[in-house]
Amino acid sequence: MMFSLHPKIVIAGTAMDIINNIKDMQSYSEAIRKDGLKIGFVPTMGSLHGGHMALVEYIKKFCDCAVVSIFVNPTQFSPGEDFDNYPRNLDEDTDKLLRSGVNVLFAPQSADMYGNDYKTYVEVKGIQDHLCGKYRPGHFMGVATIVLKLINITKPHYAVFGEKDYQQLQIVKKMVEDLNIDVEILGHPIVREEGGLAVSSRNRYLNSEKKLQATSISKALFQVKHKFERGISSSAELCIIARDILKESGVNEIDYISIVDNKLLEEKEIASSGDIVAMAARVGGARLIDNIKL
Amino acid sequence: MMFSLHPKIVIAGTAMDIINNIKDMQSYSEAIRKDGLKIGFVPTMGSLHGGHMALVEYIKKFCDCAVVSIFVNPTQFSPGEDFDNYPRNLDEDTDKLLRSGVNVLFAPQSADMYGNDYKTYVEVKGIQDHLCGKYRPGHFMGVATIVLKLINITKPHYAVFGEKDYQQLQIVKKMVEDLNIDVEILGHPIVREEGGLAVSSRNRYLNSEKKLQATSISKALFQVKHKFERGISSSAELCIIARDILKESGVNEIDYISIVDNKLLEEKEIASSGDIVAMAARVGGARLIDNIKL
Repeated sequence: MMFSLHPKIVIAGTAMDIINNIKDMQSYSEAIRKDGLKIGFVPTMGSLHGGHMALVEYIKKFCDCAVVSIFVNPTQFSPGEDFDNYPRNLDEDTDKLLRSGVNVLFAPQSADMYGNDYKTYVEVKGIQDHLCGKYRPGHFMGVATIVLKLINITKPHYAVFGEKDYQQLQIVKKMVEDLNIDVEILGHPIVREEGGLAVSSRNRYLNSEKKLQATSISKALFQVKHKFERGISSSAELCIIARDILKESGVNEIDYISIVDNKLLEEKEIASSGDIVAMAARVGGARLIDNIKL
Repeated sequence: MMFSLHPKIVIAGTAMDIINNIKDMQSYSEAIRKDGLKIGFVPTMGSLHGGHMALVEYIKKFCDCAVVSIFVNPTQFSPGEDFDNYPRNLDEDTDKLLRSGVNVLFAPQSADMYGNDYKTYVEVKGIQDHLCGKYRPGHFMGVATIVLKLINITKPHYAVFGEKDYQQLQIVKKMVEDLNIDVEILGHPIVREEGGLAVSSRNRYLNSEKKLQATSISKALFQVKHKFERGISSSAELCIIARDILKESGVNEIDYISIVDNKLLEEKEIASSGDIVAMAARVGGARLIDNIKL
């Protein structure tokens, strides 16, 4: 399945199509589907790290054609957030994707994605209001909308999302179920650096001192899980344990530490097995999130 | 393309599949698409009349497989509207569709369409707030959401909507454009009864006296167009002409008479060629809408 109209990069026998145009991407995917082949999709905002590359390796197991998108989506940044400063490294990203055996890089322009008096938004009511939803107004409306657009453009059989963005994953799963979108959404476990810090594009904002501070986030989560397994089930008590670990490390700007059910993300007073402990904190100018399943 | 798992009705050599299950419909459409055949789709709420049947005849020109859905969508009725009393005639409808050469009738259950803690809604901001949007809170959110769901289920290449519901047509077109849905939306001219009344399922609410009254709606629209062509372009002036015709016929419950642009449906003070004159009025318990292009 090769289209001559797109730039193609070839290294050591591997080839990757780079598609920028929406209609071209749709025609490409339609042709793949007509051939009876399976499409796997990894949506990203670029600045690819080990977490993204784990998603790429994972999706390749499910599909004949792996499509990765790179698009820094303006509608999921709230006013005052880091849209302008969000790291962008398209050349480096392209090289990584090619070397990892990705078949198509879809990299659209913002003017094409939100052109011509854009008006349409998707909301997953309720789930979008919890956790990060309280601190990032409009964020999950932006996420749901862009994911739906990208699915409509790349037409995948499978799409994979990292569990670090647990709320995003649940919102996408619910949207897909509710809107009868014929795609299977896969979650992939959080990839962690040595020391436990969840891999994130925003870790680039951290110097080594701040990075050390930031490891207290995962430490706090592991400790909460440990205490839960030892018999503490009061959410209030567990959250205090986590908060103390963060504060000891000098992490004082905590947006939230919450224990919620794993589907609708509603707060639990008493934690049960399968619940999610989620937190968001600001370290050295970076807003970091992480979570763990009890 | 025949699936043995669905009931099938055959009359005089014509066959129609009746599919109630969402996943079955998706598999059916996916198989049709893989065969390289074109799917055309007509979404309806049943109680089929000449307007619907004109849409069916029209879509057949564009496709190899004509799919019609019948689903009285609860989310597009505002509180206090006629959801419970909305006419339902599935047997009669089935017969009409079969005789017209439709390939598939998709008739899902409400519990399947909005089951399992339904949360997801689509909005086309701005356009949804004008005209009927002011009088039917949530109506167009319900319309956009169900149309998106039905498109995701029936996977058509073409879908057709009547121009009587002009605002609905524009909302669907904008949603499809914005969300990059790979389907072509077609509009079909309003079908009118003798006397000019736009054909509508809600005309069944009218006795003969009220039906006569209701013809003043289209008369008013034709008269506005006539006056515009004779040089009157003030919207205020044109709307007074229309209002006077309605009142003379005893139609006093007028929701709105408006002149708007034909895309975003924003009010025009001075009417231009291509603008839409739209109105909604209540006659004998039925809320009737109609429009004309200048």
